Amino acid sequence: MTKIKVTYFDMNGGRGEPIRLVLHCMGQDFEDDRFSFNEFAEVRKGTPFGQVPVVELEGEQVTQCNALGRYFAKQAGLYPEDAYQALLCDEVMDAIEDVTHKLGGTLFLEGEALKNARERIVAGPITQILKWLDARLTKQGGEYFADNRLTIADLKAFVFTQWLCSGMLDHIPASLVPDMAPALLAHLERVTSDPKIKSYYE
Amino acid sequence: MTKIKVTYFDMNGGRGEPIRLVLHCMGQDFEDDRFSFNEFAEVRKGTPFGQVPVVELEGEQVTQCNALGRYFAKQAGLYPEDAYQALLCDEVMDAIEDVTHKLGGTLFLEGEALKNARERIVAGPITQILKWLDARLTKQGGEYFADNRLTIADLKAFVFTQWLCSGMLDHIPASLVPDMAPALLAHLERVTSDPKIKSYYE
Repeated sequence: MTKIKVTYFDMNGGRGEPIRLVLHCMGQDFEDDRFSFNEFAEVRKGTPFGQVPVVELEGEQVTQCNALGRYFAKQAGLYPEDAYQALLCDEVMDAIEDVTHKLGGTLFLEGEALKNARERIVAGPITQILKWLDARLTKQGGEYFADNRLTIADLKAFVFTQWLCSGMLDHIPASLVPDMAPALLAHLERVTSDPKIKSYYE
Repeated sequence: MTKIKVTYFDMNGGRGEPIRLVLHCMGQDFEDDRFSFNEFAEVRKGTPFGQVPVVELEGEQVTQCNALGRYFAKQAGLYPEDAYQALLCDEVMDAIEDVTHKLGGTLFLEGEALKNARERIVAGPITQILKWLDARLTKQGGEYFADNRLTIADLKAFVFTQWLCSGMLDHIPASLVPDMAPALLAHLERVTSDPKIKSYYE
């Protein structure tokens, strides 16, 4: 069996979380290499792009959270076989990653600069993605983002929605998702109560 | 046959170009909906995220360049069947997209702010990605990024490398690729002289 080590922040969220969730869903043992924010400066020196998550597969470092999530999801049965459903799955993952990049650009701002940048992101990209995810979900039948079943796109959306709802991000009201994207809020609850996801957090 | 419309800037490069190249390689007719930079403000109003490329498949708008590139590449025989080779292919695509995001953040800067931002990106992310792409290519045998043959990862890298080598980007010396990534420069020439790619630009 392949030796897998996942290096990511010691938090239940972010770019590393869908990878951990997929590995848990498939019952795959892995080394859960977590570190604190204070340790990041040191950890990043050992990564190809100064970024995490990084996954070691048989000692080889592989980067890029969506690429890794897709790879494991194929093995876990959490990725569509059908090419068009796979496209819809990938589109959701990349659209979320796109907004995460924009949010990432604000993480080290402070004071008025942070407030202004966050308010611009809320009014623009976050409003767009929430409405789009809500509409897409509804169009796909309301339950899952692709293939009428749980896929890696749902895990990515779950982690993202949870983050926005957490109230952890200054100037991003926790009420955004309930106010703008009711189908996405129901989706968050659906994934949260999925037996495999539930067992991961227990 | 599916009706396909690709909406992107009227330039031979950028996020839309690998999609056009894949469609050309597979001999698929498509509506090549190009617009000038001046028209972007108007065009973006009709897109889900105010961004391009957007592809219409039977009238449905789909976004995200790497998701779309992968979808067509599967049909074109330009995507690995093997899951691990597909991971390596995806990793290259997403790593390039990552740096493109960072470069994108500088496109509307001017003067000293532009110079400082570009110099930081050259010293950091661009140096990292060029060295990484060069090493990865060498490790994979020197010719292609995955599966020992032309894939969508090579088309993505080709468009990116060409952009960096173009001298079009202020404060990004066209000599970076030749100086830092000789294997990647040879790869650019290899893809450029591929009969299908050559025939597209003729």
